[in-house]
Amino acid sequence: MTVQHRPARPAILGQNQYGKAENRVVKITRDGGTHHIRDLNVSVALSGDLEEVHLSGSNANCLPTDTTKNTVFAFAKEHGIASAEQFGIHLARHFVTSQEPITRARIRIEEYAWERIATAGPGADEVRHSFARKGQETRLTQITYDGETWEVVSGLKDLVVLNSTNSEFWGYIKDRYTTLQEAYDRILATEVSSRWRFDWTGDAQPMPDWERSYEQVRTHLLQAFAETYSLSLQQTLYQMGSRVIEHRPEVEEIRFSMPNKHHFLVDLKPFGLENDTADGAVYHAADRPYGLIEATVLRDGAEARIPLDLTTI
Amino acid sequence: MTVQHRPARPAILGQNQYGKAENRVVKITRDGGTHHIRDLNVSVALSGDLEEVHLSGSNANCLPTDTTKNTVFAFAKEHGIASAEQFGIHLARHFVTSQEPITRARIRIEEYAWERIATAGPGADEVRHSFARKGQETRLTQITYDGETWEVVSGLKDLVVLNSTNSEFWGYIKDRYTTLQEAYDRILATEVSSRWRFDWTGDAQPMPDWERSYEQVRTHLLQAFAETYSLSLQQTLYQMGSRVIEHRPEVEEIRFSMPNKHHFLVDLKPFGLENDTADGAVYHAADRPYGLIEATVLRDGAEARIPLDLTTI
Amino acid sequence: MTVQHRPARPAILGQNQYGKAENRVVKITRDGGTHHIRDLNVSVALSGDLEEVHLSGSNANCLPTDTTKNTVFAFAKEHGIASAEQFGIHLARHFVTSQEPITRARIRIEEYAWERIATAGPGADEVRHSFARKGQETRLTQITYDGETWEVVSGLKDLVVLNSTNSEFWGYIKDRYTTLQEAYDRILATEVSSRWRFDWTGDAQPMPDWERSYEQVRTHLLQAFAETYSLSLQQTLYQMGSRVIEHRPEVEEIRFSMPNKHHFLVDLKPFGLENDTADGAVYHAADRPYGLIEATVLRDGAEARIPLDLTTI
Amino acid sequence: MTVQHRPARPAILGQNQYGKAENRVVKITRDGGTHHIRDLNVSVALSGDLEEVHLSGSNANCLPTDTTKNTVFAFAKEHGIASAEQFGIHLARHFVTSQEPITRARIRIEEYAWERIATAGPGADEVRHSFARKGQETRLTQITYDGETWEVVSGLKDLVVLNSTNSEFWGYIKDRYTTLQEAYDRILATEVSSRWRFDWTGDAQPMPDWERSYEQVRTHLLQAFAETYSLSLQQTLYQMGSRVIEHRPEVEEIRFSMPNKHHFLVDLKPFGLENDTADGAVYHAADRPYGLIEATVLRDGAEARIPLDLTTI
Repeated sequence: MTVQHRPARPAILGQNQYGKAENRVVKITRDGGTHHIRDLNVSVALSGDLEEVHLSGSNANCLPTDTTKNTVFAFAKEHGIASAEQFGIHLARHFVTSQEPITRARIRIEEYAWERIATAGPGADEVRHSFARKGQETRLTQITYDGETWEVVSGLKDLVVLNSTNSEFWGYIKDRYTTLQEAYDRILATEVSSRWRFDWTGDAQPMPDWERSYEQVRTHLLQAFAETYSLSLQQTLYQMGSRVIEHRPEVEEIRFSMPNKHHFLVDLKPFGLENDTADGAVYHAADRPYGLIEATVLRDGAEARIPLDLTTI
Repeated sequence: MTVQHRPARPAILGQNQYGKAENRVVKITRDGGTHHIRDLNVSVALSGDLEEVHLSGSNANCLPTDTTKNTVFAFAKEHGIASAEQFGIHLARHFVTSQEPITRARIRIEEYAWERIATAGPGADEVRHSFARKGQETRLTQITYDGETWEVVSGLKDLVVLNSTNSEFWGYIKDRYTTLQEAYDRILATEVSSRWRFDWTGDAQPMPDWERSYEQVRTHLLQAFAETYSLSLQQTLYQMGSRVIEHRPEVEEIRFSMPNKHHFLVDLKPFGLENDTADGAVYHAADRPYGLIEATVLRDGAEARIPLDLTTI
Repeated sequence: MTVQHRPARPAILGQNQYGKAENRVVKITRDGGTHHIRDLNVSVALSGDLEEVHLSGSNANCLPTDTTKNTVFAFAKEHGIASAEQFGIHLARHFVTSQEPITRARIRIEEYAWERIATAGPGADEVRHSFARKGQETRLTQITYDGETWEVVSGLKDLVVLNSTNSEFWGYIKDRYTTLQEAYDRILATEVSSRWRFDWTGDAQPMPDWERSYEQVRTHLLQAFAETYSLSLQQTLYQMGSRVIEHRPEVEEIRFSMPNKHHFLVDLKPFGLENDTADGAVYHAADRPYGLIEATVLRDGAEARIPLDLTTI
Repeated sequence: MTVQHRPARPAILGQNQYGKAENRVVKITRDGGTHHIRDLNVSVALSGDLEEVHLSGSNANCLPTDTTKNTVFAFAKEHGIASAEQFGIHLARHFVTSQEPITRARIRIEEYAWERIATAGPGADEVRHSFARKGQETRLTQITYDGETWEVVSGLKDLVVLNSTNSEFWGYIKDRYTTLQEAYDRILATEVSSRWRFDWTGDAQPMPDWERSYEQVRTHLLQAFAETYSLSLQQTLYQMGSRVIEHRPEVEEIRFSMPNKHHFLVDLKPFGLENDTADGAVYHAADRPYGLIEATVLRDGAEARIPLDLTTI
């Protein structure tokens, strides 16, 4: 982005973006008596020739955030929501191509999953419009478009997983401040926050099947977590990432932020009780502090483009 | 509770209780390679002859909150956790019977559900120690014991449900401040928070099967929500409650706090778009304000004992 | 409340209430260039002859929650907001007296405080419309009216206070599960949540000065916390309550819910460091579990009417 | 960072870091009867030669997160906490210089401010150990050190400010999706989240006075917000940033993320009431969606180094 220098004022404008955040869009489509639901939280961020908005307050180049909100709702009607990714692509293309001052759009979407409520009475088969929110992970995507190149980064957050064995931690550095005892059978638990970038960058390429890709990546993450005999949370993280890279050719890089949700074996000796891990072990699930492990796994030769710290998508 | 009057001081001590709140207990039991997990958040509140703790600071009658915490963890080892209710009963009985100044104990428990992660590779059948947190509703129970009578109130919170049709709202009072349009096909969505009291009050009675009772009540709540053609959220609430009372003889009363999670049909006419509910309707899911509907449904002849406002259990 | 019995159905309707919750009302009044701000979160709950709303879905007696919302905003304009209490009294009276089926109204209000931003440049005195939210405690009130009697319960929450000395804890019960060491100089910290009930019950009495009363009660709570040499958090709580009862004749009872925000002296001996409280002591501020102390202090002869567990007002 | 390529496996390790997050350190220093409090939340993130931790699970190069926690508490005792920035510098230097595999450390600190409770009784002057948490903004800093160069980025979050007039918004782009009415006298409110980078990069330079710098930057932000007649939130943001750049030579760049906390003038016409802004205007404070404005202001010639999206520091 070019920045404008005002002589005699040392301050110049750098990178900037704006838009309406957290538009809560719900769409119901009907297939006879069977209804389908999409439940999204859509945030728009636009960049471009916006210096005067900042410097003089002239809004001649400013598409109001209120209008970006209206556009989100109207597009949900006009274009439908085949997937969060596809919906974001429609929106990003619109903002960049319809308004000359806007040269870059970033659309972030959270999606909440619902499951059908099974009914029992007569006519149960006909009741196909009732849902309970699944409440497990939140699906995420971020679409960025500058008029030429697309970047699609999808992901998930709040997926809490736990292995009750097959986790050790030992052989680490000891220094003056070490008190930790080595562990040969511990609980390994974390709350997975992950983002993965697709190799799809432009309209010339065929698009991935966004829905299937998400389901498959999620399954690989869970299976790799479950199947890894872990010597460190870092090792588990790497196995989760490399599993995705190996099995999903559409994914170029995958980043993780995974807190180590500590479960401490409670010392019950003062009460005359053994509390080893052989069976019936009792743990204290701690809040803070917690270990925090962050890393990227990427396809050999791919460029690392997802920033080290994951922001709320 | 008797209260102590200090002459020449107008202030007297009223009801009081204390204890350690939010003990995060996780227990893993092993059945060969198959592990089982219970994940609880246990809060203890004790009452009794505690005036001097308040008036003079003498702690002679005070069992420290730290000790109540230790007891929770030790009991998880010694007595196991057959159910949240059973665990709470063990704890309440212990506090009231083991310390003379303690005459009443209230144990509140939140329980978080986990599901097994399905694995794929060779030996998948052997991987039975990996879990993902379900993340849907939180199960609740509250045990109160005064040395003679038991009160068990179980419940759930954070269960978000939605009907995409079969909901109307019309025929209401109109006054000077009315602007609401009548609705003949709207989304009905709520986040169910419910508490139900059992008829089990003492050791002479056989205990309910707490695990099965919870699953059944939950199922009835969901089915009644789905199967009710609703003219008001109050009507749906009553149907949910009466379904439980009719089918579960162990439940004496059931209380609800249900926000009306408004989904407003977006006005797309300014953009030349129809947005009726026939198909593909787009809604804005609003945050605040929201309708809040609270009521008790109780078995004919039963005493209403759950307070009108639900507190965090 | 009378309940309606439907023959052949064991379930009957018990206590119930409904209304629009969390109406976020901001009012700006101007005194020349000097502006004043009131920032409220108002929740309405109505009760009355509402059985048919629940049983048959007839809304003939139902004043929609949307209308209660409109009324809140309109009353902010028509009647002003002299205080949260006065505003709630206007609203409660209106709902009960204007609609026959409504026989009881409960208005809960949260109020957020703002302070003026001091400006520096020329004309600084003229800039009197800029505010920063104070962010400390939230002021609360709850007005209940049944057509005859008023109950006003005000309060505050989220007020975090800490004494870095003058707190001890010893002389308590020891049992099999005791591991706690006695403490002779500890940090005492809590997050005060308190509600106090006024002696004002009807229009025949002169009203308290609600604004001054709040400021005075708050000051007494803080001073009593600071000035008490504490042998238990219960003792400090009682001192806070009795100080209010003694100094504020308009207050009949005051209830507290005060978590013991534990600050544990860190064991630095493994690193060759002393960490006593004499000077420069380092503490770990823990999250969960925490002690939770709840009690009422009331004027001799007054009736205890605030429930034991404080709900979000 | 070098990455290790494992032949025959397409996945390679990219950027990574780890450490103990959210260590809640409280330190009390005594000056006779006058106590001082520092209340920090410290997060450690280390990078270096950590490939084997990820690839093979060898922890030979891993300083456990538990040890980083111990170090934080021990350093609070040994080195004191002159300021959050100074404390972070001590910690970062230690981790990078004491362990050869660790080549980069990033320390993030939140600081919570407290104010003294004024007491009233005799001896009030002697009570100097009682505090109430201020509860307004949270102060932030992030120290990054790679063995050669320092980067110090400080900031604040959760500072909510509001101008009740002197804000307009008009003259913007109109398109098919525009419904917003132009505004000539509106409320402008935001929750300031800001980060600013210092020109201090190494031990050869004199350090800024971190405490005074924070107070001054905060004052300039508040004053610029109050004194700017605003034609857009972007313009206000730029004025806040340029004010800091102009007055604080130690600051090289400053970034903002500022939601537009919408306060909508309520339409009271249906109730026969005018609600213009001239006096006594009533607003609805909305939650979602909200405009979100993000931008950097930097000193002419300075490098922009703070990422566009602010992560929780």
